[in-house]
Amino acid sequence: MDGVCSGADGADGASSVSLELLKQKMADFAKERNWEQYHFPRNLLLALVGEVGELAEIFQWRGEVPKGCPDWKERDKVHLGEELADVLLYLVRLSDICGVDLGAAALRKIELNAIKYPAPAADTENKN
Amino acid sequence: MDGVCSGADGADGASSVSLELLKQKMADFAKERNWEQYHFPRNLLLALVGEVGELAEIFQWRGEVPKGCPDWKERDKVHLGEELADVLLYLVRLSDICGVDLGAAALRKIELNAIKYPAPAADTENKN
Amino acid sequence: MDGVCSGADGADGASSVSLELLKQKMADFAKERNWEQYHFPRNLLLALVGEVGELAEIFQWRGEVPKGCPDWKERDKVHLGEELADVLLYLVRLSDICGVDLGAAALRKIELNAIKYPAPAADTENKN
Amino acid sequence: MDGVCSGADGADGASSVSLELLKQKMADFAKERNWEQYHFPRNLLLALVGEVGELAEIFQWRGEVPKGCPDWKERDKVHLGEELADVLLYLVRLSDICGVDLGAAALRKIELNAIKYPAPAADTENKN
Repeated sequence: MDGVCSGADGADGASSVSLELLKQKMADFAKERNWEQYHFPRNLLLALVGEVGELAEIFQWRGEVPKGCPDWKERDKVHLGEELADVLLYLVRLSDICGVDLGAAALRKIELNAIKYPAPAADTENKN
Repeated sequence: MDGVCSGADGADGASSVSLELLKQKMADFAKERNWEQYHFPRNLLLALVGEVGELAEIFQWRGEVPKGCPDWKERDKVHLGEELADVLLYLVRLSDICGVDLGAAALRKIELNAIKYPAPAADTENKN
Repeated sequence: MDGVCSGADGADGASSVSLELLKQKMADFAKERNWEQYHFPRNLLLALVGEVGELAEIFQWRGEVPKGCPDWKERDKVHLGEELADVLLYLVRLSDICGVDLGAAALRKIELNAIKYPAPAADTENKN
Repeated sequence: MDGVCSGADGADGASSVSLELLKQKMADFAKERNWEQYHFPRNLLLALVGEVGELAEIFQWRGEVPKGCPDWKERDKVHLGEELADVLLYLVRLSDICGVDLGAAALRKIELNAIKYPAPAADTENKN
């Protein structure tokens, strides 16, 4: 993955890949291939379900998997990354086609979750 | 949403939300609530499947949905954003727990897709 | 569940529930409620995905579950039965609406699987 | 599919395939191949999700599909039957491994649904 230049600014690498960048790349990709005619919400949703199925297949016969998937073969981890990516890319495209700002929606949902599930006060952990 | 400044360009707010930011927020969220004990790969995968199910429910009785979901009630669009966000957040968390750099994987997958499905040469469209 | 007498042989009760019976019940159910207008293939497929999501939610935070779900509360087992049933009922209805004989397809698939994955010869187990 | 003898009673053919029969066939299939060691609830659930994904892929780029899938190629309809069957077979096996009587659960759920969504009285349609 050397040379993966990812951010809009091409500077600080993959770690700052933005949803906006992926949205734009997916839009360009579809446009260049004349695929916009297929990118309707329910088509994309079903494509997403298909990718979630492929993701599930990676995990299906493994029993419980420890954090970090420590004993997986390298090719299985690469495959995992590809399926996670496929789910993300269809999710990004579906959101765009539905007119939803996915990044904003995600930040908002985290805030709603924080209200729904308040964190224990930090100082209760430090008592005494 | 003040102070959300995450994307590659670090400029225009929510529209540049990065996967790295969401990863960090999800990690903090779990840690603050002592939920790390539940965040194993297959638990998170099943939670993701659950959210995909909720997303599907929004679309299930509607027949074909036009791009932009133009006739949806505002509350349905808000709900849609929440379910899209839920899928994303579990996907981000699952990737993190599996040790996968989701942003890098997504960029790499787009490149692989571009090789698998080459775009017609741009100039063929501009002939004559 | 008194009086449940459903199977092909009309004799030994729920244990012989046939797919044909469920198909007929689902068709009647939809007709009586004027729901046939909603029962198009992709609507039913997305409804199925929604139910699979609810099924996944039951298992999502449990870690590995032993066969028989031995430590589950009675209400959780009842809930599990309901979600398994919901998936089945939409699957039966989807098959019907697509013009697929689900029972015949299932028997045929088992035969195909037996060809794809041949069983070790029985007598190899009884050698000596 | 001639000669497919399917029902519990072995009489009236594929149309009366019972869930009990499929359960038994799946149990035998796993036992003969020494696959019982893999058939744990969450493994089977993820395998089911994988098959739902394959089912979704059949429908993903088609736009709305009319009842009966009238314009599908024969091979696509056969493929559809196979994927519907795969979902069913894992659902039957998952239910068995969880100790749920799927046929009884389905009949019970239809009854619950009938209470939740009462049918309009039949005679209101025949008034006057």
